[in-house]
Amino acid sequence: MDDYAKRGYGGADIGFGERIGIAVVDFQLGFTDGRFPMGGAALTDRAVGNTATLLAAARAARLPVVSCYTAYAGGDAPHWKVPPVLTGLRHGSEQVRLDPRIENRAYDFVLCKTAPSIFFQTAAAPIFIRNRVDTIIVTGCTTSGCVRASIIDAFSFGFRVIVPEDCVGDVAEAPHVANLQDVRRRYADVVDLNICLEHIAGLPNRNGV
Amino acid sequence: MDDYAKRGYGGADIGFGERIGIAVVDFQLGFTDGRFPMGGAALTDRAVGNTATLLAAARAARLPVVSCYTAYAGGDAPHWKVPPVLTGLRHGSEQVRLDPRIENRAYDFVLCKTAPSIFFQTAAAPIFIRNRVDTIIVTGCTTSGCVRASIIDAFSFGFRVIVPEDCVGDVAEAPHVANLQDVRRRYADVVDLNICLEHIAGLPNRNGV
Amino acid sequence: MDDYAKRGYGGADIGFGERIGIAVVDFQLGFTDGRFPMGGAALTDRAVGNTATLLAAARAARLPVVSCYTAYAGGDAPHWKVPPVLTGLRHGSEQVRLDPRIENRAYDFVLCKTAPSIFFQTAAAPIFIRNRVDTIIVTGCTTSGCVRASIIDAFSFGFRVIVPEDCVGDVAEAPHVANLQDVRRRYADVVDLNICLEHIAGLPNRNGV
Amino acid sequence: MDDYAKRGYGGADIGFGERIGIAVVDFQLGFTDGRFPMGGAALTDRAVGNTATLLAAARAARLPVVSCYTAYAGGDAPHWKVPPVLTGLRHGSEQVRLDPRIENRAYDFVLCKTAPSIFFQTAAAPIFIRNRVDTIIVTGCTTSGCVRASIIDAFSFGFRVIVPEDCVGDVAEAPHVANLQDVRRRYADVVDLNICLEHIAGLPNRNGV
Repeated sequence: MDDYAKRGYGGADIGFGERIGIAVVDFQLGFTDGRFPMGGAALTDRAVGNTATLLAAARAARLPVVSCYTAYAGGDAPHWKVPPVLTGLRHGSEQVRLDPRIENRAYDFVLCKTAPSIFFQTAAAPIFIRNRVDTIIVTGCTTSGCVRASIIDAFSFGFRVIVPEDCVGDVAEAPHVANLQDVRRRYADVVDLNICLEHIAGLPNRNGV
Repeated sequence: MDDYAKRGYGGADIGFGERIGIAVVDFQLGFTDGRFPMGGAALTDRAVGNTATLLAAARAARLPVVSCYTAYAGGDAPHWKVPPVLTGLRHGSEQVRLDPRIENRAYDFVLCKTAPSIFFQTAAAPIFIRNRVDTIIVTGCTTSGCVRASIIDAFSFGFRVIVPEDCVGDVAEAPHVANLQDVRRRYADVVDLNICLEHIAGLPNRNGV
Repeated sequence: MDDYAKRGYGGADIGFGERIGIAVVDFQLGFTDGRFPMGGAALTDRAVGNTATLLAAARAARLPVVSCYTAYAGGDAPHWKVPPVLTGLRHGSEQVRLDPRIENRAYDFVLCKTAPSIFFQTAAAPIFIRNRVDTIIVTGCTTSGCVRASIIDAFSFGFRVIVPEDCVGDVAEAPHVANLQDVRRRYADVVDLNICLEHIAGLPNRNGV
Repeated sequence: MDDYAKRGYGGADIGFGERIGIAVVDFQLGFTDGRFPMGGAALTDRAVGNTATLLAAARAARLPVVSCYTAYAGGDAPHWKVPPVLTGLRHGSEQVRLDPRIENRAYDFVLCKTAPSIFFQTAAAPIFIRNRVDTIIVTGCTTSGCVRASIIDAFSFGFRVIVPEDCVGDVAEAPHVANLQDVRRRYADVVDLNICLEHIAGLPNRNGV
């Protein structure tokens, strides 16, 4: 038992609620494609593939999906310490295009965001509220950056949060693991893709989002 | 050079801006006093002492200070996985009292919050805006929880963020270090108390907040 | 048909959804009690009485209720043009006490707010989200001030909004009527208490909030 | 002296602060062009022309300008009672294009919003914060809808709010006047274009936004 567990951290599970939504954070070419400075890590590549599988199931079950990318016009960005974010993630550039493996604009709600969290000053929360979502499965990249921020906000807004660890990716493994540990202790159930697929397969049929 | 640095993470500094504010996160007895289940870690104790020093300088320089604690009435909490948060951090309990080493209700703005971040659905951002703050020094506990969340939000709102690592505390060292590393790569300058004290000492005189 | 109706304003109704919550805005003595500079209008008095009736039904049906008051410590207020707000609505003063006709701290969630809207930087939205509310009945005072602001935010967050006009009060009738007209054209169904009571009476039984 | 003035409403002025930003709300063809169902009112037309004059001065003085339009993809809208909003304000349609009289994408920050207020879950507040704005001049349409909502939020975030009444437009005069009256009593100085132009003309020179 570690020092956190002794103090009660991680001492409860969340579980799925009645209505699930999916948040897909920053699966845009700038992060998923190795041609770009910040792109192309193995954990992220794995996460894109697994998220594609999750999304196929979620769309078939008519669960609401909100997918986002980060993009700037110039001057509208916060004080990033990552120069390629500011120079590369520009409206109209290839780096802000969603990865085709997860993109489905006919079904998903697609948002542009300017801060780490998919919820920070975006329409994500209102969309989930309108769709009566109480549980959000968070996927995307990177675990130690925008995914972590999105998990905190989903939790803060009062949603149940589920993170399939093989659907979130990062540049390196240690921060990926450390952030999931932080999150598991406090805010979210950290599971794997299969748990999510099984749960979705067991949902009662619904008509439409 | 690690994998993040190769991709450009941490490739810029933020620096202090024109007007500094201080955010003090959750230095309440439930976290700072060893009598309570979540209280009493060495890193946190160090951070309280150092923050007290920082606050003395900040108040003397008439910088705005926002201090917060987490407290619930019951049913108004998000889905915490930490049972002692829900059972212990109740309005009126000793665990929600600010640590006397940092408390100064005659000067500071004191807020109650219900989510990890001092900014999430609180008056902190409006208070800093009204005081024309552009730079926020984040202190408090815990680094891997509410401090991390507060740093992300300060950054997201467009503020410059400075984190003196010896003014933020945690239960264990590894998550403390790992979170500061995540943050240093993306959102904030991670410095120490002395850097902040020197900067404040060099500020021009001002009258009032 | 007025100029707004010709353009399509008011061309749809909202209706009650699946799960109702009640928002009670600023029924605090500073506004409801004639001893205070901003207190004691006939429309507000009527609204307090009607809201008490609504709340009795809502609590019996186990619907979540969020009640708020406005209060300041000094320096934490926005730039109000109403000096008695700043001088009178101070923490600890009688003017920030909820009107006893609507107060029920054992059941309701009670929030302090610093801006007009009950939702602006408060825990109201997270509480309603956690309780899976999709429809908010807005009551309180004043129609042309904090009620109007709260209606806009409830709508903006994606909730269905219902306003019983006899449960919201104001200093004078013309702004009360004009604001309800603005709102009816855009954001909310404007009904009366009886419609709400009938709807609540027809709800299926539930266990607990 | 009316009932509101007797109670202290409108009993203080705000005044310009140190750093001004301009918010331009929904001057998009759907509202400014008579070819569209919601478009083409005389007050709005006047406001577009006056705002163009204001913006020329603001840009010359290097003041930050945030301009927005409302647009939906479908399913991402709140529960509007105005069917032409949902059917007409679609991404890619002519109705969501900014009016060429006020559009300047090379200078302004241009945002898409989904709720009435230019601040609601958008990057407007972070942009103004990053630019150290403390005073926001609100222009746009319609006074009794999205302008009113934007004024409330600018005020709530702690900014000083100035509304030049001839730079905001509406379908009909009575709601225009009534809303400005509500706002003047509580949240903002209501002035005219000339006051703003004179103030901007008197600002010290600055380099860049």
